Amino acid sequence: MDQSELSRMNNSPFHIDATSLRGRLLRLHGHRLFEAVVIAVILLSALMIGANTFNLPGWWLGVLSWMDTAVTLFFVLEISVRFLAEENKRRFFANGWNVFDTLIVTVSLVPIPESELALLGRLFRVFRVLRLISVMPRLRVLVNSLILALPQLGYVLLLMFIIFYIYGAIGTTLFHEINSGLWGDIGISMLTLFRVMTFEDWTDIMYETMEVYPLSWIYYISFIFLTAFAFLNMMIGIVVNVLQAEHARQERENE
Amino acid sequence: MDQSELSRMNNSPFHIDATSLRGRLLRLHGHRLFEAVVIAVILLSALMIGANTFNLPGWWLGVLSWMDTAVTLFFVLEISVRFLAEENKRRFFANGWNVFDTLIVTVSLVPIPESELALLGRLFRVFRVLRLISVMPRLRVLVNSLILALPQLGYVLLLMFIIFYIYGAIGTTLFHEINSGLWGDIGISMLTLFRVMTFEDWTDIMYETMEVYPLSWIYYISFIFLTAFAFLNMMIGIVVNVLQAEHARQERENE
Amino acid sequence: MDQSELSRMNNSPFHIDATSLRGRLLRLHGHRLFEAVVIAVILLSALMIGANTFNLPGWWLGVLSWMDTAVTLFFVLEISVRFLAEENKRRFFANGWNVFDTLIVTVSLVPIPESELALLGRLFRVFRVLRLISVMPRLRVLVNSLILALPQLGYVLLLMFIIFYIYGAIGTTLFHEINSGLWGDIGISMLTLFRVMTFEDWTDIMYETMEVYPLSWIYYISFIFLTAFAFLNMMIGIVVNVLQAEHARQERENE
Amino acid sequence: MDQSELSRMNNSPFHIDATSLRGRLLRLHGHRLFEAVVIAVILLSALMIGANTFNLPGWWLGVLSWMDTAVTLFFVLEISVRFLAEENKRRFFANGWNVFDTLIVTVSLVPIPESELALLGRLFRVFRVLRLISVMPRLRVLVNSLILALPQLGYVLLLMFIIFYIYGAIGTTLFHEINSGLWGDIGISMLTLFRVMTFEDWTDIMYETMEVYPLSWIYYISFIFLTAFAFLNMMIGIVVNVLQAEHARQERENE
Repeated sequence: MDQSELSRMNNSPFHIDATSLRGRLLRLHGHRLFEAVVIAVILLSALMIGANTFNLPGWWLGVLSWMDTAVTLFFVLEISVRFLAEENKRRFFANGWNVFDTLIVTVSLVPIPESELALLGRLFRVFRVLRLISVMPRLRVLVNSLILALPQLGYVLLLMFIIFYIYGAIGTTLFHEINSGLWGDIGISMLTLFRVMTFEDWTDIMYETMEVYPLSWIYYISFIFLTAFAFLNMMIGIVVNVLQAEHARQERENE
Repeated sequence: MDQSELSRMNNSPFHIDATSLRGRLLRLHGHRLFEAVVIAVILLSALMIGANTFNLPGWWLGVLSWMDTAVTLFFVLEISVRFLAEENKRRFFANGWNVFDTLIVTVSLVPIPESELALLGRLFRVFRVLRLISVMPRLRVLVNSLILALPQLGYVLLLMFIIFYIYGAIGTTLFHEINSGLWGDIGISMLTLFRVMTFEDWTDIMYETMEVYPLSWIYYISFIFLTAFAFLNMMIGIVVNVLQAEHARQERENE
Repeated sequence: MDQSELSRMNNSPFHIDATSLRGRLLRLHGHRLFEAVVIAVILLSALMIGANTFNLPGWWLGVLSWMDTAVTLFFVLEISVRFLAEENKRRFFANGWNVFDTLIVTVSLVPIPESELALLGRLFRVFRVLRLISVMPRLRVLVNSLILALPQLGYVLLLMFIIFYIYGAIGTTLFHEINSGLWGDIGISMLTLFRVMTFEDWTDIMYETMEVYPLSWIYYISFIFLTAFAFLNMMIGIVVNVLQAEHARQERENE
Repeated sequence: MDQSELSRMNNSPFHIDATSLRGRLLRLHGHRLFEAVVIAVILLSALMIGANTFNLPGWWLGVLSWMDTAVTLFFVLEISVRFLAEENKRRFFANGWNVFDTLIVTVSLVPIPESELALLGRLFRVFRVLRLISVMPRLRVLVNSLILALPQLGYVLLLMFIIFYIYGAIGTTLFHEINSGLWGDIGISMLTLFRVMTFEDWTDIMYETMEVYPLSWIYYISFIFLTAFAFLNMMIGIVVNVLQAEHARQERENE
């Protein structure tokens, strides 16, 4: 939000009191320096999370703990500024990214007893790195477009799940007694099939079952072909969707 | 089939007796609730198949067996309703999905002696999950389009088979005495070559033959290049086909 | 070559003697049955090559040897028919596929002493399967298009070779003494790098060198990125070429 | 630079003295034979680098060392010719490729004491092979286009780095005590995750952590899906960019 936008808002009858708190916060929030500081603090927070994974001397841990409190406080302040600066408080939470930021910060405030949930608390802090996405507009656009592309994949993913389920059931029925670690129940079998799909030592699994069922290579080869084919179809589907969207965009531009 | 369609049929001279059995069945068949129940029963059937792969207590097996009979009966009823509701009985079997459904259900009815074919019976029940595809229109369209894309791949698949066959014959001739488990006959060699194509521990196979024929890396590298190239060509072929179809569709829309 | 084409040729002053040998051969060569028989014999020849890789009883080997002679004779006859039927003998050898067929058949005729070159003779017979491509027009078109696509790849392949060469030289210099089986000289190193590119147990190789040079992961990750990027570029280059060709074709059609 | 261009320059008032040194150098530099000789010397230099990695008899090493000096001298001469032939000396260094060539050659001139930095000297010589790219125009265009494509990837690469960082932090926190060789700190964890992304023995890593956290397969599968999805998006982004550029080019051509 730049100067001109602010002055336009000041001219509208609903924003007379530009020198009020919200006006000041708006000016603060829209300031380039403010944005830069927010990104810097998030990066610092990310570095602290990384640093925590190394074996550090005791005094470092103290510093990190102190910095963690400071970062948390800064985040609370920043969200408050953004919230107070927003004219329509409802619209603030209509934006998924704001909800996301608030959630991340709120949970950080919950005091965690040292003993039990310390691990959970540390894990949760990791998601602060995701705030980089909500703060950088280009990354936000990228992730939004990824999320929008998901439903297009829905039916192909359902089809792949059906293929996995059927092959999982067949695999468990046939190979259960050969290696229960790989084919114990339908869940384990589907994990094994995911492994086969990634070609990770899949021949070891095949050779093992071929000793009992010499024709079981048909099971694996057909599975690989089916999933590869479904995957190919998925990719083509996405490309076609992208091209159609592109084509529609160009036609709009021509008009 | 909705109300309006039914009433239109009632108006035609050939459908005076709308209150007859077929009319009622049509109304039942076209009902949204009916469709939802069918999908629910298929999902239940799929869950039962999955549950069967776990180690269950005895009473559960009894319940599952009882539910299996119930599901089979429901399927028989559903297909009967669909068949009787169809005006033109011939057209019913002209639809591949109907034939598929009927086959799945009919085989379920064949009584299987406990001892021998029990495994086969269990395997066959797995294919009931495929009924999800025949029941959900969007999945049916997806699978139809996949099946339609197959012939386009035909010649490239034939070409790849020729490459596999030639390399399989050469591999068997040269490497037969090095490792008969991998290069015993042309069938085993082609399976080994498929493994090489998926890059699954292919260097172990190569290093083994390179001890006898130091230049045999040429065999593997050339094979990988040829298959990768043929595969690339296949993908491009599909993309071009899809784009042409898309282009044709857009031109039709413009007119 | 169908009836109408033949009759047209008969009408031209240079083809008066249609009942002569070449006319008869032309008619034979153009006959659908002839083509079918040729394909059948090539398929039979392919099956024999496959059968030879199995452990067969002695009398089978005798039958195969007899059949091999018969197939060779048939191929000689077929090529002769095609050659004699060709009006312009020079144009016969201008066609690469004819040269290929003639070569395959001619080499088969060279008598091979049982002892030494038997292996080579058997290997060469394998290439008879390739005659399937030269006989089936659609496969011939497919392979021709693949060969035409090769030069487009030329410069990217050269670039990849340069990447391989540089990384091979660096790898040999640094890792030579760690594992000379993998990094002995630039040739062996480039084969190892090809293995890394296919992700085949590449981490084992990396962990080994990281014990001596802890930063050597940079070598592997940068190599993977560079080759993946070059490969991606290659694929996009092909797709763009295909789309341009497609676009040009459509414009020609519009006119 | 061909004859016509030279004569045009000669006609301009600023290039009267075409028989001067620069004129001669220009003529030499523009000569086809000169270019061919430069490429030949670079190739020779590349071969020498390759030859150096083999175990060679002592006298060969002497020959190679002598040839290395000769090649270095030739490179110095060639760059000097190019530099002196350039009218505007500043523009010479505005071209990145010229800077690159000068750097490669200059460093070769630095005398290296046998003992310590010999390895570094040998490594640096390897980059002479890169001069092939700067000398061959088509390769130069290819690499330029690759470099131009990089910024487009920037944000997706940043997104992937964030994914890696978050999963690395989670992995270290959870699995640190299971296998510190794979999950010791966030750096090691990110390398392990890169390995998982290439599917290289990823199931071994997963099975190990699943013994402690049976649900940790969610960690791996979600990571694979996220990175595959981001990668897919990256590829599609590039393809769309390429198509747009292509489209723009065609429109310019139509006008």
